[in-house]
Amino acid sequence: MPTLVLIRHGQSAWNLENRFTGWWDVDLTGRGVEEAKAAGRLLAEKGFDFDQCYTSLQTRAIKTLNLALEEMQRLWLPVEKDWALNERHYGGLTGLNKAETAAIHGDEQVHIWRRAFDIPPPLSETGGAFDLAKDRRYAGVKIPQTESLKDTIARVLPYWESRIAPDLKAGKRVIVSAHGNSLRALVKHLSNIADADIVSLEIPTGQPIVFDLDDNLAAKDRYYLSER
Amino acid sequence: MPTLVLIRHGQSAWNLENRFTGWWDVDLTGRGVEEAKAAGRLLAEKGFDFDQCYTSLQTRAIKTLNLALEEMQRLWLPVEKDWALNERHYGGLTGLNKAETAAIHGDEQVHIWRRAFDIPPPLSETGGAFDLAKDRRYAGVKIPQTESLKDTIARVLPYWESRIAPDLKAGKRVIVSAHGNSLRALVKHLSNIADADIVSLEIPTGQPIVFDLDDNLAAKDRYYLSER
Repeated sequence: MPTLVLIRHGQSAWNLENRFTGWWDVDLTGRGVEEAKAAGRLLAEKGFDFDQCYTSLQTRAIKTLNLALEEMQRLWLPVEKDWALNERHYGGLTGLNKAETAAIHGDEQVHIWRRAFDIPPPLSETGGAFDLAKDRRYAGVKIPQTESLKDTIARVLPYWESRIAPDLKAGKRVIVSAHGNSLRALVKHLSNIADADIVSLEIPTGQPIVFDLDDNLAAKDRYYLSER
Repeated sequence: MPTLVLIRHGQSAWNLENRFTGWWDVDLTGRGVEEAKAAGRLLAEKGFDFDQCYTSLQTRAIKTLNLALEEMQRLWLPVEKDWALNERHYGGLTGLNKAETAAIHGDEQVHIWRRAFDIPPPLSETGGAFDLAKDRRYAGVKIPQTESLKDTIARVLPYWESRIAPDLKAGKRVIVSAHGNSLRALVKHLSNIADADIVSLEIPTGQPIVFDLDDNLAAKDRYYLSER
């Protein structure tokens, strides 16, 4: 049976400040570091092991993976990093906290952006403080200017199909360290969750989520490792 | 001009205790961690950047790379890990400190093993405390039971030719985080150092070594970044 574990990065500085982060490269807090280490210890303690690791191009997810692997004495495992696993791009909301966003756009509009499946926030400002056009890591990538959850899913799933699913089908044990919305994309696909329901599925930071998959990679079971 | 930087891992617990380490997976000391971070800061400060990273399958080299990359805000760079960059395998000397080795084998013999180019230490004991046969990271690898420096070079250079050199020829900027003897192999090759001389070339921990290479990847210059 293929083994797949998903983990959302530990708490970041902007999780703590309740800011829209998206593609902005915010580091883990001290608590986030501890969450990542605890996840690694839990995985080791429960006898989990991996053959291949996947993560995004964002520091908070990569560090979470590295810290967990170090606790598992598995720093030597191969790691593939790809922008397709990045967080949803929050466009013009990037950097704003809840209060600022509500003050600018109104509570109702913010609620719509947070909870709609296919309505993207306003476009990010070209040349603005959070413009990533000059960030070398995205050279050759068509950086989105905003994304709905639907848009995020549309770039996560082709990566899943081309890179991750073949490893699982070949019997490899896989861990994916990524973000709230790139992981929602995977959970939706694997557990066959409806558009209207996936937006309210909260994925906690630093908690390994285990999938028991069938041979077609559909989820037979999905659980938080800390609860078993 | 191709950019190549080599870095030996920061101080390890057994560097400090003066034990033969080889393939045994010993962690960095606190000082080793600081050396790795300082190397990353120095590289960033001097304007160095990379496209591809290489390291061994050993924690001390991988952590050194990760810590340096984090300081450079380059954790997102691709990293390839391979046993071919592991430290020289010290065979039956693994785990012994200088005094223990001298007590068992005599000072003169120890000097020969340390300084001879092509004389390997005694074989490691099958099933002994440092047997790596059950270490999953080496599945499919013909683990040596001992190595001379010549033996180490014989497995480092094919990896260099097949993986690292093509990246440099393609214009990629490369950093290699590895070990005293796997790096001696590269320095010998690039700077064309004689067999008799390479054994006494000391490579300090945590110091970025910069190569200015010509188009055929021969060294025009080699220097410690901290000295420029």
